Amino acid sequence: MKLTPTLRSAQVASAALKERVRRPGYLSKLKTPAELAPLFKNDDYIGWSGFTGVGYPKATPTAIADHVEANNLQDDPATKKKFNLFVGASVGPEVEDRWARLDMIARRYPHQVGKEIAKGINAGRINFADKHLSMFPQDLTYGYYSLKKKHGDPNKPLDWAIVEATAITEDGWIVPGMSVGATPELLQSAEKIIIEVNTLLPNLEGLHDINQSFLPPHRQPYLISHPSDRIGTTAIPIDPERVVAIVESRLADNTGVNAPETQWSRDIAQHLIEFLSDEVSAGRMPKSLLPLQSGIGNVANSIIGGLANGPFDQVQVWTEVLQDTFIQFFDSGKLEFATATSIRFSPDGFEHLLKNWETYKNRLVLRSQQVANSPEIIRRLGVIAMNTPLEVDIYAHANSTNALGSRMLNGLGGSADFLRNAKLSIMHTPSSRPSKTDPTGISCIVPFATHIDQTEHDLDVVVTEQGLADLRGLAPRERAPLIIQKCAHPDYRDILMEYYDRALHECLARGAGHQPHMLRNAFKMQTNLMDNGTMKIKNWD
Amino acid sequence: MKLTPTLRSAQVASAALKERVRRPGYLSKLKTPAELAPLFKNDDYIGWSGFTGVGYPKATPTAIADHVEANNLQDDPATKKKFNLFVGASVGPEVEDRWARLDMIARRYPHQVGKEIAKGINAGRINFADKHLSMFPQDLTYGYYSLKKKHGDPNKPLDWAIVEATAITEDGWIVPGMSVGATPELLQSAEKIIIEVNTLLPNLEGLHDINQSFLPPHRQPYLISHPSDRIGTTAIPIDPERVVAIVESRLADNTGVNAPETQWSRDIAQHLIEFLSDEVSAGRMPKSLLPLQSGIGNVANSIIGGLANGPFDQVQVWTEVLQDTFIQFFDSGKLEFATATSIRFSPDGFEHLLKNWETYKNRLVLRSQQVANSPEIIRRLGVIAMNTPLEVDIYAHANSTNALGSRMLNGLGGSADFLRNAKLSIMHTPSSRPSKTDPTGISCIVPFATHIDQTEHDLDVVVTEQGLADLRGLAPRERAPLIIQKCAHPDYRDILMEYYDRALHECLARGAGHQPHMLRNAFKMQTNLMDNGTMKIKNWD
Repeated sequence: MKLTPTLRSAQVASAALKERVRRPGYLSKLKTPAELAPLFKNDDYIGWSGFTGVGYPKATPTAIADHVEANNLQDDPATKKKFNLFVGASVGPEVEDRWARLDMIARRYPHQVGKEIAKGINAGRINFADKHLSMFPQDLTYGYYSLKKKHGDPNKPLDWAIVEATAITEDGWIVPGMSVGATPELLQSAEKIIIEVNTLLPNLEGLHDINQSFLPPHRQPYLISHPSDRIGTTAIPIDPERVVAIVESRLADNTGVNAPETQWSRDIAQHLIEFLSDEVSAGRMPKSLLPLQSGIGNVANSIIGGLANGPFDQVQVWTEVLQDTFIQFFDSGKLEFATATSIRFSPDGFEHLLKNWETYKNRLVLRSQQVANSPEIIRRLGVIAMNTPLEVDIYAHANSTNALGSRMLNGLGGSADFLRNAKLSIMHTPSSRPSKTDPTGISCIVPFATHIDQTEHDLDVVVTEQGLADLRGLAPRERAPLIIQKCAHPDYRDILMEYYDRALHECLARGAGHQPHMLRNAFKMQTNLMDNGTMKIKNWD
Repeated sequence: MKLTPTLRSAQVASAALKERVRRPGYLSKLKTPAELAPLFKNDDYIGWSGFTGVGYPKATPTAIADHVEANNLQDDPATKKKFNLFVGASVGPEVEDRWARLDMIARRYPHQVGKEIAKGINAGRINFADKHLSMFPQDLTYGYYSLKKKHGDPNKPLDWAIVEATAITEDGWIVPGMSVGATPELLQSAEKIIIEVNTLLPNLEGLHDINQSFLPPHRQPYLISHPSDRIGTTAIPIDPERVVAIVESRLADNTGVNAPETQWSRDIAQHLIEFLSDEVSAGRMPKSLLPLQSGIGNVANSIIGGLANGPFDQVQVWTEVLQDTFIQFFDSGKLEFATATSIRFSPDGFEHLLKNWETYKNRLVLRSQQVANSPEIIRRLGVIAMNTPLEVDIYAHANSTNALGSRMLNGLGGSADFLRNAKLSIMHTPSSRPSKTDPTGISCIVPFATHIDQTEHDLDVVVTEQGLADLRGLAPRERAPLIIQKCAHPDYRDILMEYYDRALHECLARGAGHQPHMLRNAFKMQTNLMDNGTMKIKNWD
């Protein structure tokens, strides 16, 4: 289904759509995306469903971009349309990155993935702020993102919510697709709702657990004490009168293949599995471990793959997003239950999942990101959290977001939700990365991180392919030599130890030796990279 | 009662003590502190009750110091005693600071107040690590602070817990004094327990709410949805067999007077009360506000004093520590209920409180710091959190702990527990402080904080006597000019704006303009302070 204005006549509901939409009144609101596109006005506040590139609306955003492009709206300040865009996390590049390329995004919160959108943010065209993913939905409902919005319903932070559904219940409630994310709160916050019913996907009713989201002082505890506990319904309640249109979509989530494993990612996974085995032996962790959170990427793949062949049974997962390797983990018989806010499989992974749906469906739950990333539940369950930073400093502050302190990559995501509250907070990174001119030109272990998203108070373990530093219970003067010796690339160990030794000497001399630094040199490795293409500095003078 | 070895004979229980100790078996364990002092061995792991200088054991720690001093133990490596000391937060200087002066502390977690102990930490003699106060007790029970401990019961992280009680129940359970702090978990973690029954204080039974503290995977929700909710008992359960001694003490908590208000603290309070009034008008906050957290110090005093005369009724407080001004706030009729983990009043404040106990006792509850500082409850209640940093940067990262990045003051405390999870996260600071040679030589607004404890993702509002910057919903490029214009001291506005403008220009030029910085100059104001006694730099070249 190609979404162009020529489809304006297709307003008769397909059989597939009729089967999915159990509230008949909605069928009278059936529209083509092209009909809807002109309704969006400059400066509108728009929320989309979607999280880590799955479960997002595809047809309507594409039609809006088509409309803008076909009519050359962006060429003239008088017709130019720029929108304020709010999505739980990232969505597929064919919609968001295209919007960014067309300069249709004025503001974007709280996470994104895509070359064009990152370019727009770093070029100063897009106002972006990243935020803990557990907090974004509540801050939205508090009205914190619409303080400057002067038009529309003053009680609604958003003009529009456009959300993907795989079914609609008799009450008009929404059964999401492969993610829940911030969809409940986006729907709650929007004056007008457009539902894209995806009939390419099966009806996923039963996969999701949707709890009610109250505001203080009326909030109640999340009564979850095990990853499989359910506290809600299987569909998202909405006010049917705010639904202005439904659209049929047969577009797939545009996911790619997973990042392949590497030797260093396997080495990191090996260090971690040994460490966890030691924790079990010492009695600090049950044999089934505690619920796992792991990020996206090749290390996460290696860890989950390693666990599928590892010594732990009846493992639980409490995480943000599930990748393909979880299939292998389930199939190994070692993973008992997994819950997240999205399933971001590759196309092949999705095909396998849907073909074997009966095997997996009772071992999976998707929740809203406010719940999946909730400090309350992460701390209660004692989650083991594992994430990748850009750089970690010798005292274990970590940069998750801004290269060289200034260039935004994707945003914070849920890393700090998990790392602050986990029982074991682990960051894993290669010890070095190549610069343009030096295969080990970038050390991921630095004296002072150029942007700090995770503090020294939040990390228990730092691990690279070189080794693992167990920082629990250590003071800063104990941490620095350990991180340098265990984790830094050999090319940088002496450079870093010299920084530490000199800083210690200087700081003790002036009675300031708790966390030794030479402030004048704290970023010297990073500025050398900018100037000379490598962090290998000649000296610390 | 002066605690010297001459008191060894005083092992007959006083009438006051008999009245307080309702488990008769404990009376047979009555000892003098001097008898106990020699039992403590070099490298022992010791926990004390106490939080913000109240509720700590006074007699036994003093006797241990007397013993060390009288016998010149520290003069000889063979007899030297250094201990690993764990307390919920700070205790009175007459015990802790004296231990530090005598070089009796090898390791101290997770917070401290006192000249001698800070000196020991910054001189490299004391290994200190600060930690979120909500996490310290759980990390202790997990065994994270005793990974290196090779002696004693392997299942007990501590050799000793020495705790203050104002009564002991029939079951042998402990009714604390003016703080709960980490006492429940310290008792749970200790092989041997010494109870100091303080008969100078009244029996405070009923003031405390002590819940059970389970470990994952057995943890349950804290069923608290209002500051006055109780979920536990009024005394701390312990295993009576681990009680090796009780001691009678008639020593008062050694608190000083409160920090006096200043013109700038009143100005800050005024800005904040206006801001909160606007939030009520805009419908984002109920007329009774949401539960308040405020730190210690003159700004906190001004704010609470301002609220006592302010427009808000039926106010609730969910905080870490209560200061004298809460008396005035209660007496104004505007404060309905207050809960914390300690009551740190001045001597006069305590006298007033105890004289009018019947008036206040049903409007106060003390809880463990794991509960008082719990992210779970802070987020659920939608707390308004207000704390003071050392410095805040132009993007709203804040330094709460280390002067010029390296010199530890007191530690993180609960600041990040509250600021990360509050509905409104506020940091208040004077815009400048005097250096030795310049009355405004230190700007509290800087380009890059030299230590980061609170991230840009955690703060909503920054306020100085100059004004208030409402950062909600703003991207970094919007935040920096606002913080500089609203909050910086006039002496520094141009300097800071020039940093920002130059950084913006440079970073946009290389496609890295999300959070503009000049890394080579990021700490130039702070290094200029070190070199020239003022942050007023001549230029940014």
